[in-house]
Amino acid sequence: MTANASPLALRLAEDCARVDACLEALWQAQPPVEPRLDAAMRYAVLGGGKRLRPVLVYAAGRALGAADADLDAPAVAIELIHAYSLVHDDLPAMDDDDLRRGQPTVHKAFDEATAILAGDALQTLAFEVLAGSESPRLAALMRTLAGAAGRDGMVAGQALDLAAVGGQPDVQALAHMHRHKTGALICAALRLGGLVAVAEDDPRLAALGGYGEAIGLAFQIHDDVLDVIGDTQVLGKASGADAARDKPTYPSLLGLAGARAKADGLLDDALAALVPLGERGIALAELARYMIERDH
Amino acid sequence: MTANASPLALRLAEDCARVDACLEALWQAQPPVEPRLDAAMRYAVLGGGKRLRPVLVYAAGRALGAADADLDAPAVAIELIHAYSLVHDDLPAMDDDDLRRGQPTVHKAFDEATAILAGDALQTLAFEVLAGSESPRLAALMRTLAGAAGRDGMVAGQALDLAAVGGQPDVQALAHMHRHKTGALICAALRLGGLVAVAEDDPRLAALGGYGEAIGLAFQIHDDVLDVIGDTQVLGKASGADAARDKPTYPSLLGLAGARAKADGLLDDALAALVPLGERGIALAELARYMIERDH
Repeated sequence: MTANASPLALRLAEDCARVDACLEALWQAQPPVEPRLDAAMRYAVLGGGKRLRPVLVYAAGRALGAADADLDAPAVAIELIHAYSLVHDDLPAMDDDDLRRGQPTVHKAFDEATAILAGDALQTLAFEVLAGSESPRLAALMRTLAGAAGRDGMVAGQALDLAAVGGQPDVQALAHMHRHKTGALICAALRLGGLVAVAEDDPRLAALGGYGEAIGLAFQIHDDVLDVIGDTQVLGKASGADAARDKPTYPSLLGLAGARAKADGLLDDALAALVPLGERGIALAELARYMIERDH
Repeated sequence: MTANASPLALRLAEDCARVDACLEALWQAQPPVEPRLDAAMRYAVLGGGKRLRPVLVYAAGRALGAADADLDAPAVAIELIHAYSLVHDDLPAMDDDDLRRGQPTVHKAFDEATAILAGDALQTLAFEVLAGSESPRLAALMRTLAGAAGRDGMVAGQALDLAAVGGQPDVQALAHMHRHKTGALICAALRLGGLVAVAEDDPRLAALGGYGEAIGLAFQIHDDVLDVIGDTQVLGKASGADAARDKPTYPSLLGLAGARAKADGLLDDALAALVPLGERGIALAELARYMIERDH
């Protein structure tokens, strides 16, 4: 953190520190039943990460007037879902990755059985944390998180992704996969934050959802772009990894310039979706620009 | 079903049919996002099974006065958690089983990645179904299910079980493992049923919990006994499988007669725990006897 960091960068750093402290607190209450399982869960969750989904929970909730303390449970819950999905995605039977954020993946640092179980228990913990939120809209929060994480959302996206390896999907099929694999959880982060503040039928939730759909896909396209142009050391994972395993990407289908133009168009869509929020949407607009300009 | 089936057998058959219909309905609402994932989930859930945990949800709920319709969501949710755990337990990196209920396991009938994802999505679906229960005690129901399924319950038990293979645990360590691996979810089934009817601090929930702890362990001991004396065709899985993979069991530690005596003692404990329920506990008492006298 430099003395002249931007207000946005300061806010992101604060939100990351806030959710990290909440995550850390999940491991202080009592001694673990099975220490190795527990260590693998900690390793998966507390090994860093951008904390993008919690940041979106906080930003969306604040935009609609929620207090930070009421946003902690959904922020932690969605990060636990994300963390579990990475642990299982990296498994030998899935993407078979050895590195994540520059460190050995969970099945490399521990073993495959422990990685499967740690992922399973992280998913359970997500719902346990959310159940402890004491929100009057708990049922809606639960349905939002589960709906985005399961067979109609993230897990379906992972299955679509695996089915696409070696195939020749078009841009529509690629977008369909990404909308499920990463977009659903990003939309859920925004809706969870909003649901802490307003009722399920509030039209501002739909505005947040529209914003989330656009930045979710833009974020993924930018990820593909970074995979082509990025540096392994900055990314913390092997760059060019998608091409090496013959995965279809936006740059491979549209070219690098075409992919960047697509991401820029989605950024415009995201900003347009925020109009109903007026001035309260400014922080979300800044966040959208940051997400597709990041270099890691 | 014979014409002179006992009232208990008829009730069990009705409850199984009821929860099967509820499970089947989970696949009728809309076309799946990813058909192969969806087929694997169906295969894991609708391929039979004793539906013991749903049966316990219904029995416990009725004992405290709940209506059957209000018990469907927790009954389905806990069966989905059980089903996901079996899919992951059977994986090559875990127990590496080829058969389950006489049929190929999910990773054999589909593939390993699909089995991992199907298990993941079944867990999510459990919480989604429970979130749709519209119970005024949703938070308590969620905490009960998640607490029993995760790092302090079932998943910890699976990790303890894997850590014990090839080792020499004593009876206390074996009981500690079983209390987590199977006992936690059985206790949760009873508490979930009870929570539909009464508030979290009602002393009858503690009675149900005590009953659940005793029958949970008795059930597991009886399973170990069946593994020694049972017939492969009746069990639907290879008998003698535990000994073949050098897994410690009650019969291996206490002998067959000792293991049976232990199960009988636990049955007495279970019946004693039901005393506060009076006549309303009769169905649960019958169920306990049935559970440790079954031959499959």
